[in-house]
Amino acid sequence: MDMAFLGELLTNVADRGRALIGFERFLGKGARPIDRLCEDLLSGKGEASGMAFAQAVLDAWQRLDKPGRLAFFNLLAERFGPDAERLDKAIETYRKKPDAAAVSALHLASEPRRQELLRRLNLAPDGTHVLVQMREALFEAMEAEPALKAVDADFRHLFGSWFNRGFLVLRRIDWRTPANVLEKIIRYEAVHEIQGWDDLRRRLEPADRRCFAFFHPQLVDEPLIFVEVALTTEIPRTIGEVLQPEREVLPAQEATTAVFYSISNCQEGLRGISFGNFLIKQVAEDLKRELPGLDTFVTLSPVPGFARWLSGIAADPGAFHLTNEERAELGRPAGETISLDDATKARRDKLLGQMAAQYLLRARGSSGRVIDPVARFHLGNGARLERVNVGGNLSARGLRESHGVMVNYRYDLDDIETNHEAFATRDTVVASSSVRKLLRPANP
Amino acid sequence: MDMAFLGELLTNVADRGRALIGFERFLGKGARPIDRLCEDLLSGKGEASGMAFAQAVLDAWQRLDKPGRLAFFNLLAERFGPDAERLDKAIETYRKKPDAAAVSALHLASEPRRQELLRRLNLAPDGTHVLVQMREALFEAMEAEPALKAVDADFRHLFGSWFNRGFLVLRRIDWRTPANVLEKIIRYEAVHEIQGWDDLRRRLEPADRRCFAFFHPQLVDEPLIFVEVALTTEIPRTIGEVLQPEREVLPAQEATTAVFYSISNCQEGLRGISFGNFLIKQVAEDLKRELPGLDTFVTLSPVPGFARWLSGIAADPGAFHLTNEERAELGRPAGETISLDDATKARRDKLLGQMAAQYLLRARGSSGRVIDPVARFHLGNGARLERVNVGGNLSARGLRESHGVMVNYRYDLDDIETNHEAFATRDTVVASSSVRKLLRPANP
Amino acid sequence: MDMAFLGELLTNVADRGRALIGFERFLGKGARPIDRLCEDLLSGKGEASGMAFAQAVLDAWQRLDKPGRLAFFNLLAERFGPDAERLDKAIETYRKKPDAAAVSALHLASEPRRQELLRRLNLAPDGTHVLVQMREALFEAMEAEPALKAVDADFRHLFGSWFNRGFLVLRRIDWRTPANVLEKIIRYEAVHEIQGWDDLRRRLEPADRRCFAFFHPQLVDEPLIFVEVALTTEIPRTIGEVLQPEREVLPAQEATTAVFYSISNCQEGLRGISFGNFLIKQVAEDLKRELPGLDTFVTLSPVPGFARWLSGIAADPGAFHLTNEERAELGRPAGETISLDDATKARRDKLLGQMAAQYLLRARGSSGRVIDPVARFHLGNGARLERVNVGGNLSARGLRESHGVMVNYRYDLDDIETNHEAFATRDTVVASSSVRKLLRPANP
Amino acid sequence: MDMAFLGELLTNVADRGRALIGFERFLGKGARPIDRLCEDLLSGKGEASGMAFAQAVLDAWQRLDKPGRLAFFNLLAERFGPDAERLDKAIETYRKKPDAAAVSALHLASEPRRQELLRRLNLAPDGTHVLVQMREALFEAMEAEPALKAVDADFRHLFGSWFNRGFLVLRRIDWRTPANVLEKIIRYEAVHEIQGWDDLRRRLEPADRRCFAFFHPQLVDEPLIFVEVALTTEIPRTIGEVLQPEREVLPAQEATTAVFYSISNCQEGLRGISFGNFLIKQVAEDLKRELPGLDTFVTLSPVPGFARWLSGIAADPGAFHLTNEERAELGRPAGETISLDDATKARRDKLLGQMAAQYLLRARGSSGRVIDPVARFHLGNGARLERVNVGGNLSARGLRESHGVMVNYRYDLDDIETNHEAFATRDTVVASSSVRKLLRPANP
Repeated sequence: MDMAFLGELLTNVADRGRALIGFERFLGKGARPIDRLCEDLLSGKGEASGMAFAQAVLDAWQRLDKPGRLAFFNLLAERFGPDAERLDKAIETYRKKPDAAAVSALHLASEPRRQELLRRLNLAPDGTHVLVQMREALFEAMEAEPALKAVDADFRHLFGSWFNRGFLVLRRIDWRTPANVLEKIIRYEAVHEIQGWDDLRRRLEPADRRCFAFFHPQLVDEPLIFVEVALTTEIPRTIGEVLQPEREVLPAQEATTAVFYSISNCQEGLRGISFGNFLIKQVAEDLKRELPGLDTFVTLSPVPGFARWLSGIAADPGAFHLTNEERAELGRPAGETISLDDATKARRDKLLGQMAAQYLLRARGSSGRVIDPVARFHLGNGARLERVNVGGNLSARGLRESHGVMVNYRYDLDDIETNHEAFATRDTVVASSSVRKLLRPANP
Repeated sequence: MDMAFLGELLTNVADRGRALIGFERFLGKGARPIDRLCEDLLSGKGEASGMAFAQAVLDAWQRLDKPGRLAFFNLLAERFGPDAERLDKAIETYRKKPDAAAVSALHLASEPRRQELLRRLNLAPDGTHVLVQMREALFEAMEAEPALKAVDADFRHLFGSWFNRGFLVLRRIDWRTPANVLEKIIRYEAVHEIQGWDDLRRRLEPADRRCFAFFHPQLVDEPLIFVEVALTTEIPRTIGEVLQPEREVLPAQEATTAVFYSISNCQEGLRGISFGNFLIKQVAEDLKRELPGLDTFVTLSPVPGFARWLSGIAADPGAFHLTNEERAELGRPAGETISLDDATKARRDKLLGQMAAQYLLRARGSSGRVIDPVARFHLGNGARLERVNVGGNLSARGLRESHGVMVNYRYDLDDIETNHEAFATRDTVVASSSVRKLLRPANP
Repeated sequence: MDMAFLGELLTNVADRGRALIGFERFLGKGARPIDRLCEDLLSGKGEASGMAFAQAVLDAWQRLDKPGRLAFFNLLAERFGPDAERLDKAIETYRKKPDAAAVSALHLASEPRRQELLRRLNLAPDGTHVLVQMREALFEAMEAEPALKAVDADFRHLFGSWFNRGFLVLRRIDWRTPANVLEKIIRYEAVHEIQGWDDLRRRLEPADRRCFAFFHPQLVDEPLIFVEVALTTEIPRTIGEVLQPEREVLPAQEATTAVFYSISNCQEGLRGISFGNFLIKQVAEDLKRELPGLDTFVTLSPVPGFARWLSGIAADPGAFHLTNEERAELGRPAGETISLDDATKARRDKLLGQMAAQYLLRARGSSGRVIDPVARFHLGNGARLERVNVGGNLSARGLRESHGVMVNYRYDLDDIETNHEAFATRDTVVASSSVRKLLRPANP
Repeated sequence: MDMAFLGELLTNVADRGRALIGFERFLGKGARPIDRLCEDLLSGKGEASGMAFAQAVLDAWQRLDKPGRLAFFNLLAERFGPDAERLDKAIETYRKKPDAAAVSALHLASEPRRQELLRRLNLAPDGTHVLVQMREALFEAMEAEPALKAVDADFRHLFGSWFNRGFLVLRRIDWRTPANVLEKIIRYEAVHEIQGWDDLRRRLEPADRRCFAFFHPQLVDEPLIFVEVALTTEIPRTIGEVLQPEREVLPAQEATTAVFYSISNCQEGLRGISFGNFLIKQVAEDLKRELPGLDTFVTLSPVPGFARWLSGIAADPGAFHLTNEERAELGRPAGETISLDDATKARRDKLLGQMAAQYLLRARGSSGRVIDPVARFHLGNGARLERVNVGGNLSARGLRESHGVMVNYRYDLDDIETNHEAFATRDTVVASSSVRKLLRPANP
């Protein structure tokens, strides 16, 4: 299968080198300002020589400095919105006779002109790539200028269409993958940092390790999202045992459990276009086909919002019927926990487990939804909360964000649909009995 | 370069075989009706198990008979339009405060729900392919039910985005191309029929022949459009000399002229999504790079509307100051022309040439535009009308449609932009002086 | 797997185009005679500019006419044999002290210089290909000049090394295979002729058909040998039922039996370099892996020497205790058999079956070996004779060569080794009891 | 072009995984000793089940420890030499009638049986790879047991045939090359060590750097030999300027000079099978085609034998008419040279340059040939000695081996043949006038 990955590379290498013969001819010798170029591209000119104009705009854009880019985005917002006059007319028509044709006209008239502009910019060689970078710059600009959100809506709409799952290609990443792709895996790993090429190799090459990524045909060397998998015989409790360099390698055929221990998005410019859901399920399918002995698909996931939530709880006398001692324990500085005696440590761990269950099952944010973003992601995908692992991640970050707690979410293909529905419609978190047992009585 | 083509094939073969594990589980044992499946796909269910539901809808659709498909399209038109209530609210808001946010909301509210439905159907393996077939079936249904045009507008909108030139891949078609692609070239050649594999080989294998096609990564074995090219040392006057099986093959390096003698669309379901413009220009670029000796890029094109237009003229006494003899000549049945003496034939040919120039340069349809569709295509691309070739195509079809006249359109990269603008904005047909000289004085 | 096939094509397209820059420089402007070029190639010159000289020799050779080629082969025989003086010295040394070094020296001294010449000719781009053609021409020359057999021995030795099974690549041939390979399948099918592209498609595309070929990395578009396979649920008795265009296609997963119904060598120039043995076993392995339901691997094979042998028998009064009636029956002209009554036909068929069993199990040629070449091939591979099918092939050729009899040989992986040994060491033909029962008592 | 490289990878991944179904069946349950397996493989058994037996031998061999391997090689030497009886008979026949047939028979009879054994071992999947490793082990064994040289002669003969240049594939190595190939480039670089992945990237990715390797289709991920190239505008004098991390990158199109600054063999087991000659010339051709602006092809090479030779000279009072001061200077410990004053340093450098010219042009080893192995390689390829660069390599190794001197050899396609001949037949070193001027008068 990863052959295909290589095969696909071929395509694009060839295309990429494509020069635009006679390109300068169309554009005159002096630099035409970028707003004029944009208008040209949208005009009849653009129809005849679209690729050349699109390339000219993107080249000009890439040369802009930060204020220039802000100005460009403001231009998109102000000059390339919908045609107001046409829109009013369409509304009028709809008011008079709200039939399908009128709705259609209304829809078209309310489409900002920048949507067509972006579509035409995509004609340029490597255009998709630059547009993804453009949106990344737009995020920065939006911080200063929230009105640009309307511009982002159009980017997002188009990217949602272009990066439709139907167009993505799943590829295995391994030690035969080209180096220019692998260096991006090192760079983008967001959960458990990869320490250079030797560390990368340890995650890719052993028989009990897998890595898969989604690619888009237009962004050849750019993984969109990737997941790292460990093949094991049990559901692991700690990231340490998964990443252990000296562990004994398990023959893949003997594995019963696939552990998704890290999922990373690679393209900031594709924020909000969700692939992770598809990725996990597809990888699960592919692994199952390759290794029929696999029967358990779980994650080993961080609980990034736990410590913050807990510090709120610790400060709130009435919360969850905690005793004062417990509140004190939860407020204990991380630095101190090293020197706890065994009994205290055991009490503390038990308490952390209870509170983590509480946090994931009962706690709700202001929107009424589960607070933890990782939990929302997996539960929304139809996974269930399988186990709470106190002491799962003792790295500085793990301690800081979640007092070291990690969680397993389990993907059981038979239950995904039901779990998802329970969560999506009734906000019910489906959890194993072992997790539910951790909950303290609501009213002791 | 055609290597890449093969390389790309690899990708998709692999993906295509992807079974949907556990697929039936989601859908229950009995067949759920297709409308329920569509609603499910759009609902939260679809989010969690999109691929499976999408596959189920497409499978169900493929099993429908013709009335069933008509019913399905009507369903799309009626039940999957925009949410009327939400739309009214959006209009109201816009009326009150027509800011960017309101426009955006209006645009979203007026989007028919079937657009999202189609996007989700595309999640299914091979989904794009089936959606293209679906639109083909829609065309048939639209003949009976013109109201379905609103549905087609949404297909067209999505296909325009998905088949954006930026996502197309140009591939050379030659005798090393896989047979399952080649058989489609035979099937889809719409201009000068290919008589089986030996004839195909004559068009692909000789050193002075080229063929190129656009492909989309999701439709692996399906060319979207292809163009056949002859490399020559002169602009040819007749299709006969181009297709001559016994002609001497020209070493490609000695060619000065690339003749685009046939362009065929392959996917009826992509009607109205224009690729030809890009194809010709890109092929011209690629050939120029491979063979720097090429300096002339022309077509040898049919004039499909000429005979019909001429029969109207012949019947109209005042038209174009034709004499009665001339009108009689133009009305002469094709069967009779075989036995003309040389002088009559020469007079007739001259007259046909004049009238063809008239038809292409002066005649306008009811919309005020050039009548001939092939002329509109090439002139709209920025080509100029280079030469009129009486007797260019003496096949039955050539005689029937255009009294045997063919035309060369010339693509000169230096002039494309100007030519296009003249045609697009002022309806001016740019023509060589040799063609302009054929015009009879407007007022003799 | 067939992806890889395509992938491999890529390699060679690139290499093939390789021009030899500065090639003419080395060779001077006038044509140097081919014998001088050969000496140059073997000399120090050849070391520095081997590719260019090799190319020059092969180019010159390809321009030779038939007498020129004969002269060239005689040159190889006479001027490029071993160095006689050196050889005598090596023999002397060996006589004095027959140690390993002396044997080694003797071996080297007795190697004809043309072996090194052929190795260096192989340096030329596409050299292997031309050398294979050269051997084909050599066969023709050998008919006139049997002394050239010594030259062929060197070709054969080198080809045996270069076309070692370890260097061959098995590829599936299907309807996605490039046309330039497929046309060779049509051309080389030697057993059951393929009637053009539609017929080819019928043998490749249906789900219950397979075709595999061996390729060598240096002969990219040239299959070396291929086998056609039908997937069935029973061992077929006639080629007619296998090739039936209207038969119902069997889903591959339901097949239990793989029938190798045609094996064809493609390269006359590789005659005597045996691949068929490996091909059948490897295809059997690959099919078994793809379709675990397969449990029977058989051929449906011709019996090409049967009719000739039988006509000898029919003429020999004492042979096999045949009655006069039987001998008369066996001597009956094929033309007459059409109008036989049922009883006569049944008697005749029974007799043919008995005689076929006799022919395959008991008859021996002058060398003491089984007469039928197809039988020798499969039995030598370790297959057993499974069934005799009277009326298996009623084509003109089938009737002429074997009175319509076909045979199934069965490859059972568990018995291959034992069967082979029985045949190789004791000339024992392993046969099923159904075949053995056909044998007439030796002494009735 | 490097696409093809990837494409080719595809092939082999598929083949490599090939399991040998039913493998154990042939071999019985107990481990058969390796000598028995070898005899089996050569016998009729091996014909029917060659792959399985070959695999069994190679597996057994890989499990052997060092003494076991020595025993195995002795077995090859003693039990698998030529058949003595048959050889004597062949000699007798030849004596009686020394015709082509007798020579042929003699050649065959003197072929050690281990040659056929090695050919059959190559049937195993990945067999070539293991055989190359086997020869590596043989080198070690030969140190203890020089008689094994006869065994090596057979390996070398077969490898010479199998790794014929005609079967090698040239591939560009760049930053898109799979990591498992790149790590071998790091490991095998023998001239100027690569310090990890970042350093590797500096040698592959910049526009003015190239790397090419030869591959063999059977050793997919294993480069055989590679060359690193710098594109420059001048012939460089020092390795420092070539490897400088901070240098300004030159656009490839502006380069006039291709500098081969490092050539490394990768497979110890292929020692003595020469590829470097072909590699340099082919890379020169390919670069010239890609970058027509290139007109100079040179190396920047070490002079590994210089310091040793010089220490002999310094100790020999009469040599080269050196003064005592000069001899003292040449004997100066490297450590001292750092603190030399400018004048002394200049004198020393001049002297080193003169002596280097002397070493390369005049000095001859006991065999009468040029002493320096790198010089012999490039001069034998037809290069000329272009320039002596004192201070070219100031690394510890450079100072130790050659007092820091480096040399440029120049490949001028017009002169390669003449240069080679001068060197091969008359031992004449072709050198530029600047180098020749460095020579001190033979008789001052």
